[in-house]
Amino acid sequence: MSTNERPFDLLSKSIGQKVFIRLKNNVNIRGRMASFDAHMNVVLEEAEELDGGDLKAKLGTILLRGGNIIFVSPA
Amino acid sequence: MSTNERPFDLLSKSIGQKVFIRLKNNVNIRGRMASFDAHMNVVLEEAEELDGGDLKAKLGTILLRGGNIIFVSPA
Amino acid sequence: MSTNERPFDLLSKSIGQKVFIRLKNNVNIRGRMASFDAHMNVVLEEAEELDGGDLKAKLGTILLRGGNIIFVSPA
Amino acid sequence: MSTNERPFDLLSKSIGQKVFIRLKNNVNIRGRMASFDAHMNVVLEEAEELDGGDLKAKLGTILLRGGNIIFVSPA
Amino acid sequence: MSTNERPFDLLSKSIGQKVFIRLKNNVNIRGRMASFDAHMNVVLEEAEELDGGDLKAKLGTILLRGGNIIFVSPA
Amino acid sequence: MSTNERPFDLLSKSIGQKVFIRLKNNVNIRGRMASFDAHMNVVLEEAEELDGGDLKAKLGTILLRGGNIIFVSPA
Amino acid sequence: MSTNERPFDLLSKSIGQKVFIRLKNNVNIRGRMASFDAHMNVVLEEAEELDGGDLKAKLGTILLRGGNIIFVSPA
Repeated sequence: MSTNERPFDLLSKSIGQKVFIRLKNNVNIRGRMASFDAHMNVVLEEAEELDGGDLKAKLGTILLRGGNIIFVSPA
Repeated sequence: MSTNERPFDLLSKSIGQKVFIRLKNNVNIRGRMASFDAHMNVVLEEAEELDGGDLKAKLGTILLRGGNIIFVSPA
Repeated sequence: MSTNERPFDLLSKSIGQKVFIRLKNNVNIRGRMASFDAHMNVVLEEAEELDGGDLKAKLGTILLRGGNIIFVSPA
Repeated sequence: MSTNERPFDLLSKSIGQKVFIRLKNNVNIRGRMASFDAHMNVVLEEAEELDGGDLKAKLGTILLRGGNIIFVSPA
Repeated sequence: MSTNERPFDLLSKSIGQKVFIRLKNNVNIRGRMASFDAHMNVVLEEAEELDGGDLKAKLGTILLRGGNIIFVSPA
Repeated sequence: MSTNERPFDLLSKSIGQKVFIRLKNNVNIRGRMASFDAHMNVVLEEAEELDGGDLKAKLGTILLRGGNIIFVSPA
Repeated sequence: MSTNERPFDLLSKSIGQKVFIRLKNNVNIRGRMASFDAHMNVVLEEAEELDGGDLKAKLGTILLRGGNIIFVSPA
């Protein structure tokens, strides 16, 4: 842990990696992060909507608006 | 996957293509993307409102406010 | 379809025309667009509130705040 | 109808006139518009809260925050 | 009524006077306005929370965030 | 009462003093104000969550986001 | 207590320490703070979602959007 790190560094390190994203209204999404911007908008590839731990729907590539995100976690 | 990509590149590549858009309150819209701007406002042509996978209403050409969008996906 | 178009061009082309507007909370409004601004505030003339496809109330001329709009469509 | 008009022109023309305002959460207010600003904050005189078309409460002079407004209409 | 007035003039004139404030979620507050700022944040002295027209709680001096206000009225 | 006062002066005067804060969703917090900023973010020491007038939980030192606040009052 | 302190100093002092965070919608998270930014976005390591005082889910490292936070407290 370094005090010089910034929160978005976690997104930079997650490029090309699987991430888990919880959205407002308890929707959970999993996918591989292709890109992000300063608003926390993210593009996920092979995105899946989850219901608990189970697959609910395959979404393919999606552009997710940052404003709907509660948290992002490396999967 | 390129680390130089930005999320809105997915919108640029979708111009003239079919996209699927999930809105807040679980409304789903499908249509051909004609244009978008920095607020993620988008114009869709031949837009359709979906109920699950089924057609609920034909909307024609619509200007959708970006603030209502959860995610956009190439259809 | 032109890649040089911008979403608000649809509003410019709708001046003097009938439009259908869906608001948050499922209120639907129909009227003739007299003007709009960069916040998507619009003035509609002979505006009508709709319940499904049926007339619910005649509103006359209204200034509608853009922040309440989900989508605008040429009617 | 003139393409050079802007939505707030409707407010300018309504100074000293009766207006009807629908707020979020379905509250309806009627009163004489004394002033407005760029945020659509408005001062109404002899304001009344309506329940459907009926008088619910006399509010006197009020400063209404623009952010709560759905639409403003000349009464 | 003067067309040169601005909505916040009503707040300036209310300094030292009793005002009635309706908040989002139907909370009503009454008190003497001591100060306000450009965000419509206000300090009320001898503030009271009302339930209908009845006293619900004495709040003393409060700083009320402008963003929660629906309207302010001279009491 | 002075017309030169500003709402945040109440916060300045409350440094080191007990304050009562009502949050959106009817959560009430009491504690000693250690600091605040222009967004009305505040640090409270010996903070307590209240249920009506009764202690619900001891929270210790907390940084409270200003955006959740309805009002702040010297306790 | 110093009047020169600012609310975000509490976050600076919490780097590398355990914190408890209450989110809107009554979700509670506990973890070790690795970094934060001016929007109160925070990265937590070994984050856990709590149900009351009990562990509900292990979340690992998460980037939490500041806009969802009600308060942050040293655990």
